[in-house]
Amino acid sequence: MEGIMYMVRCGRYSRPHFNLLLLIILQLGLHTVDGVWPLPQKFTSSTERYSLNSQAFYFGYGKQSAAKQGCSVLDAAFKRYFPLIFPDYTSGNGVLRFNQEQAFTVEISVDHDDCESYPNEDTSEKYNLSVSAGQASLNAETVWGAVRGLETFSQLVYQDDFGSYFVNKTEIEDFPRFQFRGILLDTSRHYLPVQAILKTLDAMAYSKFNVFHWHIVDDPSFPYQSRTFADLSSKGAFHPMTHIYTQLDVKRVISHARLWGIRVLPEFDSPGHTQSWGKGQPGLLTPCYKGSTPSGSFGPVNPVLPSTYEFMAKLFKEVSLVFPDSYMHLGGDEVNFSCWRSNPDVRAFMQKMGFGQDFTKLEAFYMENIMNITSALNKTSIVWQDVFDYHERRSSLSVVEVWKKGCYLCEVRKLTKARLRVILASPWYLDQPGPTHKWARYYKVWPLAFKGTEEQKKLVIGGEVCMWGEYVDATNLSPRLWPRASAAAERLWSDEKQTFSVNKAFPRLQDFRCKLVRRGIKAEPLHIGHCKHEYEGV
Amino acid sequence: MEGIMYMVRCGRYSRPHFNLLLLIILQLGLHTVDGVWPLPQKFTSSTERYSLNSQAFYFGYGKQSAAKQGCSVLDAAFKRYFPLIFPDYTSGNGVLRFNQEQAFTVEISVDHDDCESYPNEDTSEKYNLSVSAGQASLNAETVWGAVRGLETFSQLVYQDDFGSYFVNKTEIEDFPRFQFRGILLDTSRHYLPVQAILKTLDAMAYSKFNVFHWHIVDDPSFPYQSRTFADLSSKGAFHPMTHIYTQLDVKRVISHARLWGIRVLPEFDSPGHTQSWGKGQPGLLTPCYKGSTPSGSFGPVNPVLPSTYEFMAKLFKEVSLVFPDSYMHLGGDEVNFSCWRSNPDVRAFMQKMGFGQDFTKLEAFYMENIMNITSALNKTSIVWQDVFDYHERRSSLSVVEVWKKGCYLCEVRKLTKARLRVILASPWYLDQPGPTHKWARYYKVWPLAFKGTEEQKKLVIGGEVCMWGEYVDATNLSPRLWPRASAAAERLWSDEKQTFSVNKAFPRLQDFRCKLVRRGIKAEPLHIGHCKHEYEGV
Repeated sequence: MEGIMYMVRCGRYSRPHFNLLLLIILQLGLHTVDGVWPLPQKFTSSTERYSLNSQAFYFGYGKQSAAKQGCSVLDAAFKRYFPLIFPDYTSGNGVLRFNQEQAFTVEISVDHDDCESYPNEDTSEKYNLSVSAGQASLNAETVWGAVRGLETFSQLVYQDDFGSYFVNKTEIEDFPRFQFRGILLDTSRHYLPVQAILKTLDAMAYSKFNVFHWHIVDDPSFPYQSRTFADLSSKGAFHPMTHIYTQLDVKRVISHARLWGIRVLPEFDSPGHTQSWGKGQPGLLTPCYKGSTPSGSFGPVNPVLPSTYEFMAKLFKEVSLVFPDSYMHLGGDEVNFSCWRSNPDVRAFMQKMGFGQDFTKLEAFYMENIMNITSALNKTSIVWQDVFDYHERRSSLSVVEVWKKGCYLCEVRKLTKARLRVILASPWYLDQPGPTHKWARYYKVWPLAFKGTEEQKKLVIGGEVCMWGEYVDATNLSPRLWPRASAAAERLWSDEKQTFSVNKAFPRLQDFRCKLVRRGIKAEPLHIGHCKHEYEGV
Repeated sequence: MEGIMYMVRCGRYSRPHFNLLLLIILQLGLHTVDGVWPLPQKFTSSTERYSLNSQAFYFGYGKQSAAKQGCSVLDAAFKRYFPLIFPDYTSGNGVLRFNQEQAFTVEISVDHDDCESYPNEDTSEKYNLSVSAGQASLNAETVWGAVRGLETFSQLVYQDDFGSYFVNKTEIEDFPRFQFRGILLDTSRHYLPVQAILKTLDAMAYSKFNVFHWHIVDDPSFPYQSRTFADLSSKGAFHPMTHIYTQLDVKRVISHARLWGIRVLPEFDSPGHTQSWGKGQPGLLTPCYKGSTPSGSFGPVNPVLPSTYEFMAKLFKEVSLVFPDSYMHLGGDEVNFSCWRSNPDVRAFMQKMGFGQDFTKLEAFYMENIMNITSALNKTSIVWQDVFDYHERRSSLSVVEVWKKGCYLCEVRKLTKARLRVILASPWYLDQPGPTHKWARYYKVWPLAFKGTEEQKKLVIGGEVCMWGEYVDATNLSPRLWPRASAAAERLWSDEKQTFSVNKAFPRLQDFRCKLVRRGIKAEPLHIGHCKHEYEGV
């Protein structure tokens, strides 16, 4: 092992022929704590390292790159990543260090000039990264792949005990295992200030999440300020001025997410979970009956009135224009039938439709109508698994999200057998506080460990971390989410074979958690210990 | 109820004769959400309210007050409480509102000029507060009582929907049920930046906690920078420069705590929990043996060497000078005997002393020596219950802290029967994440619900919330502590009979939690809902 020692000592000055280099295939952080999280698909690194200097560090576009200077996504990414790579750098310090290091350039080349587009379900996030003396080459098909590569590069840079920056000679080929890697935030049970959402988007990008599932409204409040139906938020939000998302707020969120390559998937859950809708839209909810008289309380959306579908068509038309993503989440979970059952008009409708006493048929009827509305708007609908469980005409469904506990892989198997695309959420409910040292329960999840064909497995398009809002708001969102969600992130991005071992992952996750803390994310500790730079906020 | 309505509408202008006032005894927030937390012992409030204006609001000293302008504690308290009472106030805004309200003065009178002293175990925190038109009178025996009264006053002030400030006519007589109301922070398992400690002290004062139990060192790290033994932190801290508490840091913490009327109780836990001590003090820990040879690992402090007690005497001498409080926590918990048992010198000592195989006797011998050291320094020692459980000469103990689960009141009973003073911690271990909506488990604690004489009950001097550091650092300290610790705070301060009902406490605690959030404390939500002002940090 003399060779390695030599290179460690003289790395910066040695220029050995590439073939002579003793390359170490980094086996999941065994050989280094400073890994990349989530683990790239192919990762070859050497002990040869290069000094980096913030005064002589540049991002540039390759000559062959389809995207050039002026590319909004990449120019913004360069600006963001510079201080992430050099966290000590303050533009105002004015002290030029004696520059004995050579300049270092990260050269980005992408195949498509998709700088003004939005990431979507077909977006390639693949990238290749090659770090050598004086240069890193980052090649990707899309700007979104380049953004993922920049994140990886930023994680490769480290500081020694004297504060000097280094990056090791590295070759990476990387791409996500699953196309859909989401985090759900619930802004109805508690309102999250826009800043808290933006900060979460930043942290998501550090773990290479690419979908922000915005569970924007629900029973407790309706904070989305609709252009079409102003009363929904003015009467249904916790407060009509301070606890709403204006159109501008939503635009900011979408625009911030776009620059990170994150899709914003809106969910307007119905027919259940709609109590707050009723406040601003009289006649929308089903009046519940006690005996033969209305009780004064209301149940799910009223599925028997044409006015319901007219309202929904207008609302979803607006939503489809506000949110550019091609997916729309329609909810459809946890519908309580007791109010429908109590209502004579609903019962009459059931009889007319020949549904008998089976209210699941009524729910299916309702969802069918809503899905027709969204497909007419050219949107792919996602629904919670309840809709599938109740549905006979399953072919009309497209993407189903599995959330129930128990044998969730049984459900995944059933869904893929019915040729439906699946998003898995069950094992990643993080809203309840849990001991962070038991993070491995979110890591040891095997989404494809069910009996099925290759075709079936391909239908599992990804997974999602759910942060429901019963007990979560801006005071505790970050530590509850991070770094537990990062465990899920690696499961969704990385090769399962290379990331099978919890013990091997642990030091890398600890290191990554410290990186999050350094970046100002309140990611809570996994165990006794310390970070070089502790969280200094209060 | 006409009378009330009238006063609500015209409150500000009405000057009804006092005897005609319809006084409402506020029964624990049933009649108002804006209560005081923890609930004062006697609280009479009227619907008559007075407008407050930050431009015409003054603190002043009463003519009879022993403390006058220049009193460090009160002058600093006035400065702190002004922005807490008027959270919208920014000194720079320069806009003078048209002042139709009369001036309002809070006049403070205290019996003793204890402005430069430290709060201690005999400190009276009793205060009377009377709010009437144009004036509030706050009377207390000590400046510390006045500080408690200012907190109460600040919680009485509220804003209407237009942002105007009001305070209702109120009479309060208040004093704590228990003298010792502590929070333990553990700065060894994770290092807490000084700012995080100071912020916790602020939040403690809002809940009227009065003891900061600083579990400053333990196995993982020794962050206390000793003047006498510099190696303890330079070799035993996580990092010798960035993860230590300098003498200046400790002074800042003590001084900040003093201004809030909070005692700082240092704990240097031994003979167990001392792995980090061994790094900077060779020879202190017991060498463990494997058969007849040292294994290379070390156990608890070596109780058989005179050098141990010489070291401890010097260290505790220093600690007694650095920390002004008359209490000192000596630890004594969870000593693992296996290393002592393996060591031939320890075994020989056991034989010589006639301890047989009973290592609890050796621990008692060790603790006896340490307690002799501290009592020679005029300090009252606190130990964890293990020491009592192992001790035969129980009369040498003074204060014992109960921490073990199970029938903790059985232990309290035993201790008080042995005429020892008791601090109860068992029901208030908050380091593990718990569902905050189950806060009532920290509220429904009845520290005196054991069979015993009145004399015995008086020996229960208080209780303590323990925030151990395995999974806690500055990233998650605040939401893990608050508002759950506030539930314990009310149990320790308020009258048990008036605070028996969880349902009555709930809206008051929700309101108090929003006050904490408004003051910048990341207190997590108790349930679905919102605060008028959400936490805006990220």
